[in-house]
Amino acid sequence: MTDDLQRGLEGVTVAETRLSRVDGENGELVIGGFPLAELAPNATYEETLFLLYEDRLPTESELADFRADLAGKRAVHPDAIDTVVDAAQRDLPAMDAVRMGIAAAPLTREGDEDPETDARLSVAQLPTVAAAYWRARKGEEPVEPREDLRHAANYLYMLDGEEPSEERVRGLETYLNSVVDHGLNASTFTARTIVSTESDVVSAVTGAVGALKGPLHGGAPGPVLTMLEDAAARDDPASLVHEILDAGDRVMGFGHRVYQVRDPRAAVLQDAAETFYEGRDQRAFFDAAREFEDTAVDVLAEHRPDLRLETNVEFYTAVLLNGVGVPKELFTPTFAVARAGGWTAHCLEQLEDNRLIRPRASYVGDTDREWTPVDER
Amino acid sequence: MTDDLQRGLEGVTVAETRLSRVDGENGELVIGGFPLAELAPNATYEETLFLLYEDRLPTESELADFRADLAGKRAVHPDAIDTVVDAAQRDLPAMDAVRMGIAAAPLTREGDEDPETDARLSVAQLPTVAAAYWRARKGEEPVEPREDLRHAANYLYMLDGEEPSEERVRGLETYLNSVVDHGLNASTFTARTIVSTESDVVSAVTGAVGALKGPLHGGAPGPVLTMLEDAAARDDPASLVHEILDAGDRVMGFGHRVYQVRDPRAAVLQDAAETFYEGRDQRAFFDAAREFEDTAVDVLAEHRPDLRLETNVEFYTAVLLNGVGVPKELFTPTFAVARAGGWTAHCLEQLEDNRLIRPRASYVGDTDREWTPVDER
Repeated sequence: MTDDLQRGLEGVTVAETRLSRVDGENGELVIGGFPLAELAPNATYEETLFLLYEDRLPTESELADFRADLAGKRAVHPDAIDTVVDAAQRDLPAMDAVRMGIAAAPLTREGDEDPETDARLSVAQLPTVAAAYWRARKGEEPVEPREDLRHAANYLYMLDGEEPSEERVRGLETYLNSVVDHGLNASTFTARTIVSTESDVVSAVTGAVGALKGPLHGGAPGPVLTMLEDAAARDDPASLVHEILDAGDRVMGFGHRVYQVRDPRAAVLQDAAETFYEGRDQRAFFDAAREFEDTAVDVLAEHRPDLRLETNVEFYTAVLLNGVGVPKELFTPTFAVARAGGWTAHCLEQLEDNRLIRPRASYVGDTDREWTPVDER
Repeated sequence: MTDDLQRGLEGVTVAETRLSRVDGENGELVIGGFPLAELAPNATYEETLFLLYEDRLPTESELADFRADLAGKRAVHPDAIDTVVDAAQRDLPAMDAVRMGIAAAPLTREGDEDPETDARLSVAQLPTVAAAYWRARKGEEPVEPREDLRHAANYLYMLDGEEPSEERVRGLETYLNSVVDHGLNASTFTARTIVSTESDVVSAVTGAVGALKGPLHGGAPGPVLTMLEDAAARDDPASLVHEILDAGDRVMGFGHRVYQVRDPRAAVLQDAAETFYEGRDQRAFFDAAREFEDTAVDVLAEHRPDLRLETNVEFYTAVLLNGVGVPKELFTPTFAVARAGGWTAHCLEQLEDNRLIRPRASYVGDTDREWTPVDER
C-alpha cells in the first residue's frame, strides 16, 4: 500500500466556495450566505439560482429578465427527446435518459459556447428531459414546456399537462432549494474537475448527472417511499423496522456520511411537507411518516447504540415529493433538476480562478514485460 | 486562503493502478507492464485492451472471441446518430457530438447494465460516433461499421467507406496503443470519480469525454498540423518558430506538464510515422516535420533557457494521424477512441476495490444573511 494514498480524498480540501457550507457536527447548512431555513421556504428556484450565480438576490426586474431567459431555453431538441423516449421504452434507468438528453443540450443553443449560457441551458432543460422520460414511461407524448410558468411550476406541468396549484409549486420549490447545493459532493466535484480542463458547462453537468446516478451518491428516496407506504398500510411502524433489521437490511432514510445529527434539510422538508399535507386527504400519510420516523430513530438507537442514526434528507424528500406529485421513478432526476443549480454555479466559480484538477496514481504493476507474438502464447 | 488548500490535487495520490506508470523525470512510460516501445508497435488495439482488462495478453482463441464481441457492439442507435449528425450540421465541436453519441450507448445494449459489458460497449461505439460526425461534416451519410475488420481498420473504413491498407491500420494502432493510458490525467480521474459512486461505466466514459474536450487536457494536435503544413510550405522552419515566438504565441507540440525530457510517446510515434511515410509521396512532409522539430527545440532552448521544451506527444500525433488519413477535425475524438481503453480499464480497476471519491471545499462566504422579499429589494 502506498504510504500517502488518499483513496476517497476524505478531508482533502480542493476548493474554496461561497456557495454552501455543510456543518456536519452541528447539523447546519448555509446556502448562498443564508441559513437553509431562511432561504428554502421563501425563495423561488429562480431566486436561489440567481443568488448562487451572483452572490445576491435579484431585484424585481432582474428576476423577471432571468426568469424569461431561463424559460426561453426549456425546449429540448426533438432528436434528443427521441433518445430519451427510446431509453424509457427500453426500460433504461431514468438517469440514463437524463444523461442522454442533457448531453445534447447545445443542439438548441443560440450562439457560441459560453459558460453562463450553458449553465442556464443545462438548468432549463433538465426538467424537460426528466418529464419526457416520465411521459414515455406511461406511453404518453411529451408535454411541451410553457414559458409563462416558473421553473418548478413548468416541471410539474410537463409531468401531466395540468397547471399545478400554488401549494404544489411551493412544496417543490422548497425541495429544490433545500438540495440545490451541498458542498463538494461527488457529482459537484465531478463537474468542477471536468470544467477545470476548460471544457464546457454542459459537459460538466453531463458528467455530474452520471455521478449522481450512482447509488452511493444519488441516494434512495424511492425505496423510502415504498417503505413508508408499507408502514402506512399496516399501522405498526415498530414491527416494520424490526422486520427490516432482522432481515439484515438498512432502514432507508436514516444516517448520513457527513451529518452526525439530524440532517438540517430534514427539518425544512418536514415543515414543507406538513404545510402541504395540512388539511388534505393524505394528511394521514404524513402522520404515519412522522410516527415512523420517531419509532425508527428509537429502534435504531437500541439496535446500534454506537451509531447515531438520525433522519436524513431522503426521508422527507420522499414524503414531500410524493405529496406534490412527483412520481417515485423521478425522485433521482428531480434531485438532478435541483442540483443542476449547484453544479453550474460551482462550474462558474471554478472558472473564475481555474486550476486543472489532476491528482496522481501510484503504479503497482510490472515494468519489464516482453512482447510475445500471439501464436507463441 | 485556506491553509491546506490543494486546488489542483497536484502530488495527491488517489489510487493505485497496474495500468500505466508515467515517469516524467526519466521520460519513461509503462503500459500494462510493458515499456511503451515494446507494446505499442507490436499489439493490435484489441490486444492492448485485453491486456489492460486482464493484466495479460490473450491467447489466439481468447483474442478471436474478444474481437468478435467488440465488433458486435459497434453499431450505434440511429436516434443517437441523429444527434451526432445534428451536432455536425450545427457546427458544434466534434467532442460535443462524441459526448452525445456515447451518452446514448446503452440504447443498443443487450441485457442489463454491467461494468464489463458497458466498458466494451463504450470502446466499441466511440469510433462509430466519431466517424458519423465526420461524414456529416462532409455532408455524407454515415458508413455502417463492419464486423470483420479489427478496431482500428473499421474506424478508418467508416471515415471514407474504403477498406484501409495494412500500413494505415498499423500506423493508427501504434497511435492508439501509445495514448491508451497515461496515469491519472483529468479525464481518467473523472471516470474513476463517477464510477466511485457505483454509477455505470457509460456514465463514466461520457464524463471523461467531457473532460478530454477541455483545451487544458485534450491538447492541440490539430494546430500542430496547421503549423507543420505552414513550415513545409515555406522551407525555413527557424523563421516560422521566431515569428510564433515574436507574436507571443506558444509553439504547439513542445513541453509537457509531467515530462521534463522528451515525451516517450514522441519517439514511438516518430518511428511509426517514419515507417509509414517511408517510400511514399508524402515523405517530404515527414522530413520537414523532423527538421522543424530540431530547429524548434534549438530556438526554444535559446528563447527560454530556464525551461526544457522538448517534443511532446502532440507533435508526432499530428504527423502520424495526418499520414494514416485521420482528418485534423477528428484528432481529439481519435484521442478519445484510444483513451476509452484506459478510461474503462480504470473504471473496472476502481470497482474492484471501490471507495467513494469525495473531497471537501472550504467555505468562504457569508453565513447569516436574512431574507428580503423581492418587492423590498
